[in-house]
Amino acid sequence: MRAARYYDRKDIRIEEIPEPELKPGAVAIDVAWCGICGTDLHEYLEGPIFIPPKGSPHPISGEEAPVTMGHEFSGTVTALGEGVTDLEVGQNVVVEPYIIRDDVEVGPGRSYHLSPDMNFIGLGGRGGGLSEKIVVERRWVHPIGDIPLDQAALIEPLSVGHHAFVRSGAGSGDVALVGGAGPIGLLTAAVLKAEGLTVYISELSEARKAKARETGVADEVFDPREVDVAERVRELTDGQGADVGFECSSVPVVLDTLMDAVRPNGVIVNVSIWGRKPEVDMPTLVLKEIDLRGTIGYANDHPATIRLVQEGRIDLAPFITGRIGLDGLVDEGFDQLINNNEEHVKILVDPNA
Amino acid sequence: MRAARYYDRKDIRIEEIPEPELKPGAVAIDVAWCGICGTDLHEYLEGPIFIPPKGSPHPISGEEAPVTMGHEFSGTVTALGEGVTDLEVGQNVVVEPYIIRDDVEVGPGRSYHLSPDMNFIGLGGRGGGLSEKIVVERRWVHPIGDIPLDQAALIEPLSVGHHAFVRSGAGSGDVALVGGAGPIGLLTAAVLKAEGLTVYISELSEARKAKARETGVADEVFDPREVDVAERVRELTDGQGADVGFECSSVPVVLDTLMDAVRPNGVIVNVSIWGRKPEVDMPTLVLKEIDLRGTIGYANDHPATIRLVQEGRIDLAPFITGRIGLDGLVDEGFDQLINNNEEHVKILVDPNA
Repeated sequence: MRAARYYDRKDIRIEEIPEPELKPGAVAIDVAWCGICGTDLHEYLEGPIFIPPKGSPHPISGEEAPVTMGHEFSGTVTALGEGVTDLEVGQNVVVEPYIIRDDVEVGPGRSYHLSPDMNFIGLGGRGGGLSEKIVVERRWVHPIGDIPLDQAALIEPLSVGHHAFVRSGAGSGDVALVGGAGPIGLLTAAVLKAEGLTVYISELSEARKAKARETGVADEVFDPREVDVAERVRELTDGQGADVGFECSSVPVVLDTLMDAVRPNGVIVNVSIWGRKPEVDMPTLVLKEIDLRGTIGYANDHPATIRLVQEGRIDLAPFITGRIGLDGLVDEGFDQLINNNEEHVKILVDPNA
Repeated sequence: MRAARYYDRKDIRIEEIPEPELKPGAVAIDVAWCGICGTDLHEYLEGPIFIPPKGSPHPISGEEAPVTMGHEFSGTVTALGEGVTDLEVGQNVVVEPYIIRDDVEVGPGRSYHLSPDMNFIGLGGRGGGLSEKIVVERRWVHPIGDIPLDQAALIEPLSVGHHAFVRSGAGSGDVALVGGAGPIGLLTAAVLKAEGLTVYISELSEARKAKARETGVADEVFDPREVDVAERVRELTDGQGADVGFECSSVPVVLDTLMDAVRPNGVIVNVSIWGRKPEVDMPTLVLKEIDLRGTIGYANDHPATIRLVQEGRIDLAPFITGRIGLDGLVDEGFDQLINNNEEHVKILVDPNA
């Protein structure tokens, strides 16, 4: 079968590899669609980061570059391994793409995603969504009912937004300010809106502002060049400030704005990935008794996230901004996202095309 | 009566001022002892900070420099204003030294200390503990039973430690790492120990390490020059890390150590005051889903803090390292704390001596 394989920085090859073997307790899936993630771009431009470089196999998967890429994918079950009795061949599914030690307990209340040496299918080994087929442990497979397979490829990044929402402790009626309307900012906003929050977004890019407005995920979109965002949020909240902020930009001034914009005892969830240690407005964090919370990936979020889409509370279609085949991965995918980043939310790859 | 009055940076004068007038709803107190706080030192060396400078009266108190200093004090009730029926003349008390708008509700569950323009008695006006007498609104007066008046002057900074403990959400059986064994670090550790936590302290100074050991507030004291503190905490916690960390140093590398030392989903409470924006290890905060929480002052903490001392669960006597009269405030107080900072925890001032 064909697969996109990461050899090294700027060296991704589409090549023929053997089909994965079905094993007891696992599920064979024909991949339908796989999204390109910011993490994939970072691996391409600056990696290997999550990907274990040649000579340094990952302690759980035992694999090293080259590895198959792709961790945001949907597909159809084609075979069930021994002992798997609660799924059916022909069912459409998505994968929660974790590589986690066998002895780590998975289930409600468990932060299994924070266990030692955690990595992701499609980065740390165990195949990936940028290939025709994959075999995945049963515990990571989530049925999606009648959600269209293209939209379902966005369940993974939407689960990142859902986990950020859960981490915030916010709920219906609360006011949220989202800093940055890239893919994760938009999808986080979509979850917040679906959960009944009032959602404000701060964003500079014209294209992203337009997308935030067009997708309806925000009650208002502010451009920090045009308004004092924190001041405007206070005006809209009787002088109180937002209940919760979501940092989705990895830009220090955006984090500063959130510190300014949340109310005393407010919460800020940092959803973005920082490549370095930024200066943080600790004086304000202290004087306002703000909670600054990290969030990474998801844990026990997929079922609730899938339900939000099934119930029609989130429409993922408007976030799909491109569809390409596997051969176009670098030219039409990575390069397009690098050069026209702000025009795109999610480019989907059909590994069979 | 005599009082220590702050005129400007490095200009504190002991002078004769009129006695304060008793008002309805207020309590007249003869001050017994008043501690010198790090905040007082900052005002002396780098201020005015909290103190409203001449020409800029505080919006609530209406006062400006010169103001009477001192916010960590104990005393005895000498008269009760009209309407105050639940205290008695002769009772020993401490003061929760807030200046807060009259319309801000005070009581359990209320974050009244985060209300707009909050300031402190003894900094923002309304008299201070570095004077013979003071008149204080009833709501800020807390009876202390038979706690000795000298020790009671430490209830205020101990309440800062109690509030940090409450903010952490930690409880009996949890493991805490306290970064820095200055006065606030030691008193925070004292609360944690009294509440049943296992307490580790990281500290460089020989004198402070000795004090931490001698007061019994820590199960172990680590010197970061001698051991990898985070590694040692993991060894002592089955590889997990501390449940909660307390930053009590305003030193960036200490905050880094706490980020390293807490377990995944751990909490760090920042108790220190930062004069600038430090670099913060956001990558670790994100990957371990740490909660970094600000804490300032106290709110609804005094009754519980007083109880801890009354029940003998905290002995404040060992934290008193000096006693001086009002005339010695600068020479024997401030200058001593500036030049021999690490030898001292708390110097008490008797404004009648």
